[in-house]
Amino acid sequence: MELIQKAKQIKESSYELLAASTYTKNEALKAIANQINEDRKIILEANQLDVEFAHKNSKSSSFIDRLTLNEARINDIIDGVNQVVCLEDPVGKVIDSWDKEQLQFKKISVPIGVIGIIYEARPNVSVDAACLCLKSGNACFLRGSKDTIHSNIALVETMKRALSKANLNTNCIQLLEDTSREIALEFMKLNQYLDLLIPRGSASLIKHCVENASVPIIETGSGNCHVYVDDKANFDKAIAIIINAKTQRVSVCNACESVLIHKDILTQFLPLLVTELKKHNVIIHACSECVQIDSKLLLASEEDYACEYLGLEISIKSISDVKHAITHINTYHTMHSDVIVSEDENHINLFSLLVDSACVYVNASTRFSDGNEFGFGAEIGISTQKIHARGPMGLNELTSYKYIISGDGTIRK
Amino acid sequence: MELIQKAKQIKESSYELLAASTYTKNEALKAIANQINEDRKIILEANQLDVEFAHKNSKSSSFIDRLTLNEARINDIIDGVNQVVCLEDPVGKVIDSWDKEQLQFKKISVPIGVIGIIYEARPNVSVDAACLCLKSGNACFLRGSKDTIHSNIALVETMKRALSKANLNTNCIQLLEDTSREIALEFMKLNQYLDLLIPRGSASLIKHCVENASVPIIETGSGNCHVYVDDKANFDKAIAIIINAKTQRVSVCNACESVLIHKDILTQFLPLLVTELKKHNVIIHACSECVQIDSKLLLASEEDYACEYLGLEISIKSISDVKHAITHINTYHTMHSDVIVSEDENHINLFSLLVDSACVYVNASTRFSDGNEFGFGAEIGISTQKIHARGPMGLNELTSYKYIISGDGTIRK
Repeated sequence: MELIQKAKQIKESSYELLAASTYTKNEALKAIANQINEDRKIILEANQLDVEFAHKNSKSSSFIDRLTLNEARINDIIDGVNQVVCLEDPVGKVIDSWDKEQLQFKKISVPIGVIGIIYEARPNVSVDAACLCLKSGNACFLRGSKDTIHSNIALVETMKRALSKANLNTNCIQLLEDTSREIALEFMKLNQYLDLLIPRGSASLIKHCVENASVPIIETGSGNCHVYVDDKANFDKAIAIIINAKTQRVSVCNACESVLIHKDILTQFLPLLVTELKKHNVIIHACSECVQIDSKLLLASEEDYACEYLGLEISIKSISDVKHAITHINTYHTMHSDVIVSEDENHINLFSLLVDSACVYVNASTRFSDGNEFGFGAEIGISTQKIHARGPMGLNELTSYKYIISGDGTIRK
Repeated sequence: MELIQKAKQIKESSYELLAASTYTKNEALKAIANQINEDRKIILEANQLDVEFAHKNSKSSSFIDRLTLNEARINDIIDGVNQVVCLEDPVGKVIDSWDKEQLQFKKISVPIGVIGIIYEARPNVSVDAACLCLKSGNACFLRGSKDTIHSNIALVETMKRALSKANLNTNCIQLLEDTSREIALEFMKLNQYLDLLIPRGSASLIKHCVENASVPIIETGSGNCHVYVDDKANFDKAIAIIINAKTQRVSVCNACESVLIHKDILTQFLPLLVTELKKHNVIIHACSECVQIDSKLLLASEEDYACEYLGLEISIKSISDVKHAITHINTYHTMHSDVIVSEDENHINLFSLLVDSACVYVNASTRFSDGNEFGFGAEIGISTQKIHARGPMGLNELTSYKYIISGDGTIRK
C-alpha cells in the first residue's frame, strides 16, 4: 500500500521536476541546507534512537560509528548540500543538433525521471542522494536500512519541509518506511514507476539487487583494483603509488588490492615494496615466485587475486609481461580502476587500450577515482558496469536525453 | 555446457576486438558480405528446412513470410552489411579531455564488450545484429528462435568462415544452438560474460527479458505513439501527419496508434480526419465526445488508449488543452515517439519539454523514428528506456567509454 501509493506520487512529481528551473532547484537545495541546520535537534534525537537500537542489537563499533550523527557530521551534510547548489545544472543542454532534409533534430539532456536508491545504515546517504537527484531534476525514492529508519524519517521530513517552503512538490523526495525484505523486492520491480535503481553499499547488497531487480540498475562500488609495475617502471613512482593506493584509506572501493610485478624486476623491486608495506602493517599474500625471494610472505591462493580486502591486506604476483598483466587484470578485476607504472610508451598504450576498466591510470594512484577528484564536484557512486555510465557518476551521469524533431507538416516518403 | 563454453570463448574474443582497427573490422564485414553471396545455396537450403517445419506446424502465412529467405532478401542482407562498412567507426573517439592538477584526463569511446541478442523468427537479424556489433567492436552472442535454427546456423557458419578469412577470431560471433526456454533463462543471467542484452521482437519477448534478465538490458520497440492536434494546428498538416504515421506502414513501432484532438476544434476537425482514415480502411475507436459527433464510430475503452494496435486501427480522444494532452500521453505512451501539431510556440515548447518520450515531434510524422531517417545509417533497435540510450540506437549507442588518467607518480593527498 505504502509502496504503490508513494510510487504513484513520486512519478507524478517527477513530471513537475522536468520543468523546474535551475533557480527553483537551487532555492530548494538552499532551503534543505537551512532546514537541516534548523532541525538539528530533531535529527540528532532521532539518530540517538537508532544508535541505542544498534547497541541493544550488539552491532559492531564500526557499524555504530557509520550510522552515528553528531554536530560535525550534520555540518558536513549541510556543506555537501551547499556544494551541490554551486554545481552546473546538467539538464536542458543541447548535446547535438543537425538538419536532415526538412527536419531539424535537437538532442537535449533531460532528467532520468524517478531514481530509486537502496542503501545501508548510512543516514547521510539520504541527503546526498536526494540532493544530487534534485539538482539533476530527478525525483528520488529512498529505501534505507531498518537500522537507520528513525534518522532517515527525520532527515526526509526535514527535506520535505524545505521543499514545501521552496514551493516544490514535496513528493519528489520519498522514503519507503517499510524496511522489510519482501517490500524491498517489490521496490526493485517497480518498472512502471522507477526509471533507474542505484544500490549503494556492500558487494552483497549490490549483488542482491542485480539478481532481483527488473528496474534498470547501475552497479557501483565493487573495486578489486590493480597496480601493475612494468619492467620499465620508475621504482620511486611505483612505491609511492602503491602505498598511496593501498594505505591512504583502506575501506574504499578505489583502494589497491593487488600488485603485479614484472618478473625481470621482481628480485630488485619486491624487497623495496615489502619493506614499505610492512611499515604500514599491510599483510601480504604473494605468489610462489615472491615467496621464494622472501620466505616470510604468506602464499596467495586463487581467492586472494579475486579478493577485495577493504583492509590492510594485499596480494602480489609475478607477471611475465604487459600482456600477461592485462589478461590477469581482465580476469580478476571488477572493471573499476587499474594502474600501469611504466616509462615505456608502447606498454602504456597497450595497457590503456586493453585493460577493460572504467578508469585506467598511467603512473597515478587509483585513489583519484572519485567524483570530486575528477572535477565533477560530487558523485552518486562509481559505476562498474558498461551501460549508461562508467566510473565516477556526477550530475551529468544522472541525466538521459530526448530528441526534439521539428518539421512543417513533414511526412515520411 | 554449450552455453558456458561459448560464453567463455566470446568473452575472450571480445578483448581481441578491443584492439581491432577500423580497417580490420571493415575487411571482416566485406568478407561477410562476399561469403553470404558465395554461400547463397547453403543458406537457402537451410532456410527451406525452417519453412517446411513452419508449414508442418501450421504457422500463419505472415509468420512464414517473415522467416522465409529468397534471392532478393539475401541481396538485402548483403546490402545491409555493405552499408555498415561505410559507417564511421564509433570506437576510439576522444569524447572529452581535461587537466586537473597534475593529472591529464581523457574520456574515450570503447566497445561495450559482449552483447547478447535475443530475437524471434527473423533470420536477417542474425546478420544485422552481428555486423553492427562487429563494426562497433563488440562480440555478439545470438540466441534466435527454434523456428529459424537451420537458417541461423547456416548464416553464422557463413559469417565465421568470413571472419576466419579476415583473420579475426571466429568466436566473436556465436550462436546459441540450444533454443530451449531453460537455456534462454540462463543466457539472460550470464552477467560474468555478457555486458548487455538487447531483445528484438514482440512486446511479450521484451517483457519476458526485462522480468528475468540480470544482465543489463535495453528495452526496445514497443510503441504506443500519439499525435496531438492542438487548437492552433494547421489542419492540412495534421491530416497529412496522422495518415502518414498511421498508414504508411502499420506493423511498426513508430506507427501512430492514438490521436488526441483539442476540444475546441473537434467538431471541425474530426469529420475531416474520419473521412481520410476511412479511405485507408482504418477502424476507429473514439471517446464519447467524438461518438456524439459521429455516431458510426466505435466507443473506445480504457484499453484502447493503451493499445499498440500494429494494424489499421486507431483511437481518438477529445482533449481539453495541451496540458491535458501531455498528462494523457505520459500516462498511456511507451516513451517512444509523440507528436504535437500546432503553430503556437508556447504550446509547442510546453509539449516538447514535458512529454517524456525518446522522440518528440513538432509538426512531423512519428515514422521518422528510425536510425536511417535520423542519419545514423543503421540501427540495432529503438530504445524506450531512459538508461544508456533513447530512441534509435546506431553504432554510437553500441559503445561505452573509459577514462585514461595520466600522471607522473601522482598520488592523492
